[in-house]
Amino acid sequence: MPTVEQARAWYPDYDPVHGFDHILRVLRMAERLAQAEGGDLEIVRAAVLLHDASGAETGGEKRSEHQYHSAEFAKKILEAEGWPPERIAAVQHCIRAHRFRGDEAPQTLEAKILFDADKLDVIGAFGVARTIAYDVVMGWPFYAEASDRFRLTGVKVEDETHSSYHEFLFKLGKIKDRLHTQTARQLAEGRQKFLNAYFEQLDAEARGEI
Amino acid sequence: MPTVEQARAWYPDYDPVHGFDHILRVLRMAERLAQAEGGDLEIVRAAVLLHDASGAETGGEKRSEHQYHSAEFAKKILEAEGWPPERIAAVQHCIRAHRFRGDEAPQTLEAKILFDADKLDVIGAFGVARTIAYDVVMGWPFYAEASDRFRLTGVKVEDETHSSYHEFLFKLGKIKDRLHTQTARQLAEGRQKFLNAYFEQLDAEARGEI
Repeated sequence: MPTVEQARAWYPDYDPVHGFDHILRVLRMAERLAQAEGGDLEIVRAAVLLHDASGAETGGEKRSEHQYHSAEFAKKILEAEGWPPERIAAVQHCIRAHRFRGDEAPQTLEAKILFDADKLDVIGAFGVARTIAYDVVMGWPFYAEASDRFRLTGVKVEDETHSSYHEFLFKLGKIKDRLHTQTARQLAEGRQKFLNAYFEQLDAEARGEI
Repeated sequence: MPTVEQARAWYPDYDPVHGFDHILRVLRMAERLAQAEGGDLEIVRAAVLLHDASGAETGGEKRSEHQYHSAEFAKKILEAEGWPPERIAAVQHCIRAHRFRGDEAPQTLEAKILFDADKLDVIGAFGVARTIAYDVVMGWPFYAEASDRFRLTGVKVEDETHSSYHEFLFKLGKIKDRLHTQTARQLAEGRQKFLNAYFEQLDAEARGEI
């Protein structure tokens, strides 16, 4: 089993969105979900520690495929530790299936737990902070007015500027409904409300309403 | 009178904390305060457009003295426009007195309006976003546990990590009480509550309480 100290070396010294503090929060949450929902804790832990370990750097070119790079990296690490092939495959499935915009959906309880724990860290106060931090790394503004077309279809009109507020409308405002486990959905209630209230306040301040 | 378009050129293309979108929000707020409180609108506007125009870059070396650099810059700009010396001096006073950690306190209504409008942009949802963005530029974490000594005195214990949460405890949580005009204090009520609720949620999530 890879240790937390071993995992620290796989992550950059500073990445405000996908750095090691994110991994530690997801680990604690995944353990909490597994305690309530069941699942193989060793597989859950290994999957959490390895899920962003290769190609996930914020703003990096490989980000859109980091689930595959990290699953390959996991295989090497776990083979070197002498894990049996079927347990390595189980960890790899969790990692490949952890993305909101991914091709592979979580099939096992362990994969659902990683997905849910990871998504709970994009809502709530840390979710707000990570969304804003992503903006800063990408050079986007916090807020830009969203067109009616974007609100309805997720497709921007010509010259429409991207912003955190757009990320909220497209993805972040509906995370709760995408979660798999009952325990995570319950925990998500308060965090989703908090995140949505944040972006409603941002919108109202930007419009000069309050 | 310097125009908004002219002022745009004095600010960097992208600065998430002290960029031109901050100037535009402060301008709108200062006009709103002046409408309710009175004051010379031409002086208020010139002071807003020029208050961060020299040395205010986030993370820059001159930041701690940007009020003096910007006041000098303002003098040059307004002299070139043929402003009379006493009106230039009035704008310069506003600029020198706009900082929370400054030596010069606002004496005139116009200086109080700039101070208050600027501080309203560090609380509320934009305040949260700018605080988080400052962290990212400086390479600080969003959250680190605060010692009892820091909570009581604002002085850290050895090895205590700085974070947004520390900025909240030291400065941001009490902005409302530092404002000068009645109108700004009223507007600050909701924004201060919002900001404080944000950092309380961040703290609770970090501790795994919710």
